[in-house]
Amino acid sequence: MRSASDTPIATAPSSPRIRATTIDVPGLTSSKVSPDGRISNRDIGAKLVIVMVGLPARGKSYVTKKLARYLNWLQHDTKIFNVGNRRRIAAGAGGDHVEEPPSPGTNEGTGLVSPDAFTRLDSYYDLSPKSSRSFNAHRRTNSITTSGLDGGMDQSAEFFDPKNKVAADLREKVALETLEELLNFIMEGGGSVGILDATNSTRKRRKAIVDRIRQVAGNELGIIFLESECHDEKLLEANMRLKLQGPDYKGTDPAVALEDFKRRVTMYESSYEPLGDFEERLGMPYIKMIDVGRKIVTHQIRGFLAGQTVYFLLNFHLSARQIWITRHGESHDNVAGRIGGDASLSDEGKRYASALAQFIEFQRKRFHDRQLQKHAMAHLPPRFGDSTPPNPEYTGCCQEDEQGRPLEKNFCVWTSMLKRSIETATDFDEDVYDVKQMRMLNELNAGMMEGHTYEEIRQKWPEDFALRRKDKLHYRYPGAGGESYLDVINRLRAVIVEVERMQDHVLLVAHRVVARVLLAYFLGLKREDVASLDVPLGILYMLEPKPYGVDFKAYKYNPETSWFDELENFELKNEEQKHVEPTIY
Amino acid sequence: MRSASDTPIATAPSSPRIRATTIDVPGLTSSKVSPDGRISNRDIGAKLVIVMVGLPARGKSYVTKKLARYLNWLQHDTKIFNVGNRRRIAAGAGGDHVEEPPSPGTNEGTGLVSPDAFTRLDSYYDLSPKSSRSFNAHRRTNSITTSGLDGGMDQSAEFFDPKNKVAADLREKVALETLEELLNFIMEGGGSVGILDATNSTRKRRKAIVDRIRQVAGNELGIIFLESECHDEKLLEANMRLKLQGPDYKGTDPAVALEDFKRRVTMYESSYEPLGDFEERLGMPYIKMIDVGRKIVTHQIRGFLAGQTVYFLLNFHLSARQIWITRHGESHDNVAGRIGGDASLSDEGKRYASALAQFIEFQRKRFHDRQLQKHAMAHLPPRFGDSTPPNPEYTGCCQEDEQGRPLEKNFCVWTSMLKRSIETATDFDEDVYDVKQMRMLNELNAGMMEGHTYEEIRQKWPEDFALRRKDKLHYRYPGAGGESYLDVINRLRAVIVEVERMQDHVLLVAHRVVARVLLAYFLGLKREDVASLDVPLGILYMLEPKPYGVDFKAYKYNPETSWFDELENFELKNEEQKHVEPTIY
Repeated sequence: MRSASDTPIATAPSSPRIRATTIDVPGLTSSKVSPDGRISNRDIGAKLVIVMVGLPARGKSYVTKKLARYLNWLQHDTKIFNVGNRRRIAAGAGGDHVEEPPSPGTNEGTGLVSPDAFTRLDSYYDLSPKSSRSFNAHRRTNSITTSGLDGGMDQSAEFFDPKNKVAADLREKVALETLEELLNFIMEGGGSVGILDATNSTRKRRKAIVDRIRQVAGNELGIIFLESECHDEKLLEANMRLKLQGPDYKGTDPAVALEDFKRRVTMYESSYEPLGDFEERLGMPYIKMIDVGRKIVTHQIRGFLAGQTVYFLLNFHLSARQIWITRHGESHDNVAGRIGGDASLSDEGKRYASALAQFIEFQRKRFHDRQLQKHAMAHLPPRFGDSTPPNPEYTGCCQEDEQGRPLEKNFCVWTSMLKRSIETATDFDEDVYDVKQMRMLNELNAGMMEGHTYEEIRQKWPEDFALRRKDKLHYRYPGAGGESYLDVINRLRAVIVEVERMQDHVLLVAHRVVARVLLAYFLGLKREDVASLDVPLGILYMLEPKPYGVDFKAYKYNPETSWFDELENFELKNEEQKHVEPTIY
Repeated sequence: MRSASDTPIATAPSSPRIRATTIDVPGLTSSKVSPDGRISNRDIGAKLVIVMVGLPARGKSYVTKKLARYLNWLQHDTKIFNVGNRRRIAAGAGGDHVEEPPSPGTNEGTGLVSPDAFTRLDSYYDLSPKSSRSFNAHRRTNSITTSGLDGGMDQSAEFFDPKNKVAADLREKVALETLEELLNFIMEGGGSVGILDATNSTRKRRKAIVDRIRQVAGNELGIIFLESECHDEKLLEANMRLKLQGPDYKGTDPAVALEDFKRRVTMYESSYEPLGDFEERLGMPYIKMIDVGRKIVTHQIRGFLAGQTVYFLLNFHLSARQIWITRHGESHDNVAGRIGGDASLSDEGKRYASALAQFIEFQRKRFHDRQLQKHAMAHLPPRFGDSTPPNPEYTGCCQEDEQGRPLEKNFCVWTSMLKRSIETATDFDEDVYDVKQMRMLNELNAGMMEGHTYEEIRQKWPEDFALRRKDKLHYRYPGAGGESYLDVINRLRAVIVEVERMQDHVLLVAHRVVARVLLAYFLGLKREDVASLDVPLGILYMLEPKPYGVDFKAYKYNPETSWFDELENFELKNEEQKHVEPTIY
């Protein structure tokens, strides 16, 4: 019997009919094939391959990293398979520009987190030449046989000339090998979403990809093409300048590099076929993003994960702004060591609230002053030798005054609906800050154990205490309203999407578990690290999204000075004070 | 001081700066200006005017009605302002084709709900000639001065000829008067979203609309153009056939009507300017839907409500399928009269579960047989005299077998994670039905009052009992995890969006409050009716979305026959057994 569903029809080998594939939310949905709400290996129709399409310097990797981070945070195992990286390795030119960092939940640490966050991120994405030491291990494990090819093949524009037969064959081979890895991840590795990050700029290549996927995985597996186009000249120029600092041009004079890169793009352009009528006639699902956040075209989007993907992509923008996260000031329950409840701030907590408002006011003004300075220094098109990545904000993405200077941003302060969080925000001037309370930011509800100390719980409910210790991520507190970390992730989703959507600064005055889950999203923490992250009272975290990652800083409240001191060389740790690795993408 | 935000910049008369406009979710967010989470009148930047664009018979009214129903259900006051309706009134040709039914929360009942649901919906949207009695009251209240114009102006194609000066002036006047009403609703009437439903087919008209909105409401108020295009010939033909049964052609021979309607469309086409480059150069936000659900283009979408709107529109489709809703079978707590808890089914409840599985199996097969019959009878293009609205499902929207016949649909059975709901679904054959449990479908959590009878609550917590009685919609049960109806609405949102997205049949095995909230969405119930809706155990509701509304039926479990009897002339009632008016749009 064949059945109609919202997934494509196929003769599945393992099942007598094509099953419906509907909403799967880890922790919130459950079925026989998927008791934990994660997409089961049998539900191939619920899984998704996202095939990137686009010329170089169109922000494809930016999009894939952010999307993978979001989907992984939602507990859908997602991995990026970057063809460019493998191409460089295969040609022996080095694969340092890792556009496919290990996904959370795997243990492929890269061992690369230098103390200063900004430097760390630059080097992580290899925007600066100093990090060449980084990925030797990665290179080894991903090494691909380059039979018949000399190592160290030139990666300049000529390599990308369609008439260069040897190079074209190599590129073809690498692309298909990368696809095999992706399919293996989906079919055998328990993966839910595989993202193939490459230019895939011709119909022929795209057809070959679809054919191979159908051959290996059948007709059920969802496939979406995701194209990034840039029509905005200034945005394109900014993207290209970022590329000049990438691995293909390490040590090359910027002027020479820019010229070569432009030639490479021209090579691709000569044979580039954007998504459009051809795919529409075939009924092929696609998403086209034009000028990151300006315009989006979607075609035949079906399936739950595909819909979630579009919804998330809709909210992309490149505005510069800061996201601040802290826990509430000390409460009377904190003093007593009780969890949950709805206590007010202690006197110490009130002093924290006062210092917080003053420090944020200082930082808010400082950010704007810096924006004005940067603006005064910016020049487009870039001058030779200029290696400062221009902020795409200055390419038409933000509001400007009559002189073209960036306008001061709004600043939102969001608290939970619990007293200790609301009271921590009382010292903000509501004429300047937009203060809002959100139930989604409330602390994890400990059900019947609310109001007890951990010691009491251990004594009264030893079994629950042990169960929770064993798996804090999935453990749900018993009793009315009791929650798990997964429940908190799910209710914070609306907050995350809103933070991504808006271009204003925001301070989130949260609680221990909520702060952990928020940091897990913004820093791409591994699944097993989330529930044990050390997030003490009195620390203020700052995240500033950048085109290739996130600038991350931490400040510690100093009760002596009623001010915050920046924690130099700050590293995230778990409760046992072991280092926690962010995998920001 | 001017500030940058994600809302357009303007010099607001009432505030020294343009405030940030972020997520507002009634019941979940709160701020000084919006304590209840609804958009305050001061937050003009968070409000939205949606200006429809599109030729006649492009499904504009279908889109507006569904969107308004969703936004109203989310407690964002939304109203449709239909220019065509006012045009007919102004020209004295009758305004019976009410494309702007009263919004939930107002008391403008139409008094038009005939017993049989299918007939009721046809007549509600005036698809059949028999309902001419319907809207006299409405006509009176909305009457517009038609000074200098004879009543009874001909509404045939010539009326729409751009060269017909008198008619053009009238149309212009009516369009602007409708816009004034809309702006009044937004600026003075506490409305959050106003939808201007008209063709707005020229740039000139659209510019006039934007200019007038900016003049009245300033630069902050969000404006989005929403265009519906049909490229699919069969879909267009189907849409046109629906129009022939509308008010403009009442009593006209179908052949003549079709010819006239096509001429009218040609008149519009001659001056039609679709959204595109022009709007993009101006940075004007727009959404373009192409062939309902096939393709969507979004441009410069900013703001929370705008994002919600796009997300909802992404999930549109016209597939024929059935949505079934029932409460679980009788539980031991039901027998004892206790609320909440997690009891198992009583023996009576188990018998209900068994009958339910058998009855649904019967209905599932029956639906498919009917689809096959309809398919055999369908003919495109329509023959003269054929007044059966063709189901657009047969115009390329659904999966077909080799002979072009519709394939059998999947059937999903979704329960909550509570025993009484899960057990009600145990008799479904999991080889045929996709059974899934969802925490979102759990009953409203009564916090510290879980497990008590209403009588106990009245005695133990008389104040709470009275508070809840006074305003059940907003009342939140005290204690850990205690919820309000608004909390339930918010967690059911993911379920509703998923039901809209998928094309499979679905049975939702819910609880009292959850069933009320689900029915409120599908039938567009007024806000004040939701929490008192009479939804007894043992009733099975069936909703079948149609191009112009929803076919609604109710069946009652018969313990004697272990079967379900259709309730003829079924009307929704509240707990005092008073009639409840659905305002399905």
